[in-house]
Amino acid sequence: MTVPYNPPAVPDLHSPALAAALQHRLDHLTKPLGALGRIESLALRLGLILGGTAPRLDAPQLVVFAADHGLAARGVSAYPADVTWQMVENFLAGGAAVSVLARQHGLALTVVDCGVCHDFAPRPGLVVRKPARGTADALDAPAMTPEQCAAALANGAELLRGLPGNALLLGEMGIGNTSSAALLLARLAGHDIAACTGAGTGLDADGIARKTAVLRAVLERHAGATAPLAALAALGGLEIATMTGAVLQAAAERRVIVVDGFIACAAVLVAARLAPAVTQRCVFAHRSGERGHGLMLDALGAEPLLDLGLRLGEGSGAALAWPLLVSACALLDGMASFAQAGVATAG
Amino acid sequence: MTVPYNPPAVPDLHSPALAAALQHRLDHLTKPLGALGRIESLALRLGLILGGTAPRLDAPQLVVFAADHGLAARGVSAYPADVTWQMVENFLAGGAAVSVLARQHGLALTVVDCGVCHDFAPRPGLVVRKPARGTADALDAPAMTPEQCAAALANGAELLRGLPGNALLLGEMGIGNTSSAALLLARLAGHDIAACTGAGTGLDADGIARKTAVLRAVLERHAGATAPLAALAALGGLEIATMTGAVLQAAAERRVIVVDGFIACAAVLVAARLAPAVTQRCVFAHRSGERGHGLMLDALGAEPLLDLGLRLGEGSGAALAWPLLVSACALLDGMASFAQAGVATAG
Repeated sequence: MTVPYNPPAVPDLHSPALAAALQHRLDHLTKPLGALGRIESLALRLGLILGGTAPRLDAPQLVVFAADHGLAARGVSAYPADVTWQMVENFLAGGAAVSVLARQHGLALTVVDCGVCHDFAPRPGLVVRKPARGTADALDAPAMTPEQCAAALANGAELLRGLPGNALLLGEMGIGNTSSAALLLARLAGHDIAACTGAGTGLDADGIARKTAVLRAVLERHAGATAPLAALAALGGLEIATMTGAVLQAAAERRVIVVDGFIACAAVLVAARLAPAVTQRCVFAHRSGERGHGLMLDALGAEPLLDLGLRLGEGSGAALAWPLLVSACALLDGMASFAQAGVATAG
Repeated sequence: MTVPYNPPAVPDLHSPALAAALQHRLDHLTKPLGALGRIESLALRLGLILGGTAPRLDAPQLVVFAADHGLAARGVSAYPADVTWQMVENFLAGGAAVSVLARQHGLALTVVDCGVCHDFAPRPGLVVRKPARGTADALDAPAMTPEQCAAALANGAELLRGLPGNALLLGEMGIGNTSSAALLLARLAGHDIAACTGAGTGLDADGIARKTAVLRAVLERHAGATAPLAALAALGGLEIATMTGAVLQAAAERRVIVVDGFIACAAVLVAARLAPAVTQRCVFAHRSGERGHGLMLDALGAEPLLDLGLRLGEGSGAALAWPLLVSACALLDGMASFAQAGVATAG
């Protein structure tokens, strides 16, 4: 299966001069060398992405990509599929965790119907770009046709081009989508599906065993789908494909990409297999409580900021980590140097 | 040695009815059970401290306790002792890390001269409460006399009573104060000093070995100072003693206490040995990069929120963690329940 999609060019950010200038700035601020720990490596990364020694985050956009999954009918989730559209309504009404966190941090919140099995009334904050009403049951057929997958990727890129600012926070909703993420991890990183499959929204041990058996059969059904886009079409979700397109476009535009949990990482994994320099633009928000997320982070070479046992998705982890990015920029820009402050250096 | 100080009463917060009401609220919000991980236990703790199911954080106060250490003359720090007063000037001028972070998060910043070897010009944001100009060299004599130690404890309590709001964030500055914190940890938790002694502001391996030898001799010199207040007077610092007084008073007033790193934890350790229910009021901000902090957190039964390799002090870690507390309250108050949002529950 060939998906008719050409990813945008994502150049390497390698810039020894800028990296040295950022490190020099960090090393002369009024603190012991390296005393701000991971906040310093975060500041360095933000400077490299945004291309300066005083990076400024502008108009951050939290986008929640939502879609339904044919595989949900196989009982892979603790919740009924209707929860996808009901939670979209909740995001838009302001009652979901991500709604609350976006308000707290001044993040613009956009919900994208990438393929929900529901017709939403139009309203501010909702964008409808659905190549299909949910994916096919991946045990029967590829989740998406090549054309649907390409359309979702293009939708993500187009959506991103229309958003202001220089930072994208990834969120998602889709009953059944930890299954797609686990399948993509197993296929693209070469792990056994049992190590990739977790409780999702709250399966018990028997539920996880059943889910694992279903996913193992799905992988056998699509044994030939080994290339990144073929795997995405066969095993993924419409929200993951749309997110992948948005991630590639954001990377091409040199935006900061704040990656939430297991499902957002799956989209970044596909994107990084197509354009490895994507991960240079990423800040990984957190290590989640979902089994498989550790392997996912390893596959991406990621060191996340938070480790709070979150397993909600929606972009909630990205939003919780956001103030750390703001702090990194503020410290780089606002702290005095030893010379400016008249403070003695280490003897 | 008897320190003439009576700690305030700190009652146990045990309230099964309130804990059940908070858990019920958390379990009916529109998210899978427990999906917000550590943010849920944080929300529970804040509700128990502030006494309701919709806790609100009000007028948070970040207090930086600063003082000098006689032991600094023994070469236990990578920085000269003058850096203590120079950094106090930097805090007040707005150029230190904690100044930047306090501005970002709307935290009122107060710097307390608890015993700096310097005369500061009076100005807004600076409070001078110094029983002495620095401690004595603990290798020669107790760091504080019983009267000095009691005065510092009383100063902390009095200072706290004058501050508005219901949350105290702990910060500190004092060249040499990781030595005092290591000594208190070794003495009060019964660890060998080598396991408690780290790089502080940036000693190399030889420097740490020399520091460890000095601290071992200090412990031998004050072998009889085993009671919490006797240990505080013999081994502590004026900023740690003042902070201990503030922590006890904040706990008695049922304020939320946001604990920064190794030195702030040492003050909480002394306070908790006098009134164990103090730790019920504490939110531990982070696990620092300082050797010994893990043992310190274990001694306090603490699970910190962040793990970012910070080793700066000043309250920087408390300030970085602060938005997570705000999020916990906002989520508890602002999220819709399943019934309110019309979302189906797990099948």
